[in-house]
Amino acid sequence: MAKATIVMFSGDLDKALAGFVIATGAAASGWDVTMFFTFWGINIVRDSNKKALEKKEMVEKMFGSMMPEGVEKLKLSKMNMGGMGTSMMKKRMKEKKVKSLKEMIEDAKELDVKFLVCDMSMDIMGLQKSEFIDEVDEIVGVGTYLKESKDATVTLFI
Amino acid sequence: MAKATIVMFSGDLDKALAGFVIATGAAASGWDVTMFFTFWGINIVRDSNKKALEKKEMVEKMFGSMMPEGVEKLKLSKMNMGGMGTSMMKKRMKEKKVKSLKEMIEDAKELDVKFLVCDMSMDIMGLQKSEFIDEVDEIVGVGTYLKESKDATVTLFI
Amino acid sequence: MAKATIVMFSGDLDKALAGFVIATGAAASGWDVTMFFTFWGINIVRDSNKKALEKKEMVEKMFGSMMPEGVEKLKLSKMNMGGMGTSMMKKRMKEKKVKSLKEMIEDAKELDVKFLVCDMSMDIMGLQKSEFIDEVDEIVGVGTYLKESKDATVTLFI
Repeated sequence: MAKATIVMFSGDLDKALAGFVIATGAAASGWDVTMFFTFWGINIVRDSNKKALEKKEMVEKMFGSMMPEGVEKLKLSKMNMGGMGTSMMKKRMKEKKVKSLKEMIEDAKELDVKFLVCDMSMDIMGLQKSEFIDEVDEIVGVGTYLKESKDATVTLFI
Repeated sequence: MAKATIVMFSGDLDKALAGFVIATGAAASGWDVTMFFTFWGINIVRDSNKKALEKKEMVEKMFGSMMPEGVEKLKLSKMNMGGMGTSMMKKRMKEKKVKSLKEMIEDAKELDVKFLVCDMSMDIMGLQKSEFIDEVDEIVGVGTYLKESKDATVTLFI
Repeated sequence: MAKATIVMFSGDLDKALAGFVIATGAAASGWDVTMFFTFWGINIVRDSNKKALEKKEMVEKMFGSMMPEGVEKLKLSKMNMGGMGTSMMKKRMKEKKVKSLKEMIEDAKELDVKFLVCDMSMDIMGLQKSEFIDEVDEIVGVGTYLKESKDATVTLFI
């Protein structure tokens, strides 16, 4: 069976969309797909309705509040124009019947795409497991990403 | 035979150059190479001398005019400095006898690199097939990219 | 044996870290790893204590001084905030006992990660072999990168 692993490094809306279009497309065709959320990409799987369970340090609160808290807050990497470009893009996607990122994430999960979150990034940015969306399967190290990639045909860094 | 597929997501000059250096290098060594132009990367294959055949909506005209219209309009992702950095880079490439992006695209085509354009991106951005350079082979969905990637050795996202 | 090749295109601190976390992680697990430093990524392997041996043209000096001179000068691609974000990130990494980029580079070398520098980029940017850190193995063309990638499982563009 074909297999793909995708490092989701970026937290930009456009790149997140690209990643999920490929991930859901592949999974829908029967591929085994693993996404490894790291660095800014971790923000894609944050849930703004969830709370940290352990007390946060000052700097952790700062990091947390400065980064986009989940899928609805992501911005385009280009032409954001104070949010206007991002809104236009979302509107345009709706008109063209392209699913929203949130819907793609749900689809990915239903298609058994594996969601791994990088433990080192989580730690550095002061995020906690309880703050992520339910779709996240596991908090893991780079070793797990590598193990998953060992027999992958497609390996992308986004 | 070795095979490479490259997702051309970025519309920055430097990243486009990197993609085409790898694509033409691989194709010249006998590799089978497919490039999949999506999102901002679609701008690389726009032809400023060509026109849309169907009427465009307001928002489509806006998108179209705000994005770089083809290879000559692309800017560096860093050190663009109002265009000065981009000019310097082009001048420098010429001095060092490095081909221009336009020439690399022609080379790629001569070496049978396959040019695929993402239908979803085209649709969202309101571009039409008639606006692309002749080098484009086909407008396709992500499924075609995946099929091409199934037996690829090198798979890159640029 | 598993094998990975990583194109280090970006000269941003966060992306460089991501690249080296993967490279050292893979090499520590016995993978054969090759890094190909090109474009802005070349700045990662510049050594600020080393000097050019041949006379530089004006434009080469300009390029050289405008780009970050080695690992200590790299900035985050996001949230740099005039350097404050970058400092915070480094401090945070130290607290969390994550190695610095400099240490990761040393580890990579000890683990036999191969460091290749793109000759074309070096030439365009007017850098010279004598200006790089000792860890660099060879100055090569894209053909060498492709040869290395031919039997790689993981191929990334960062």
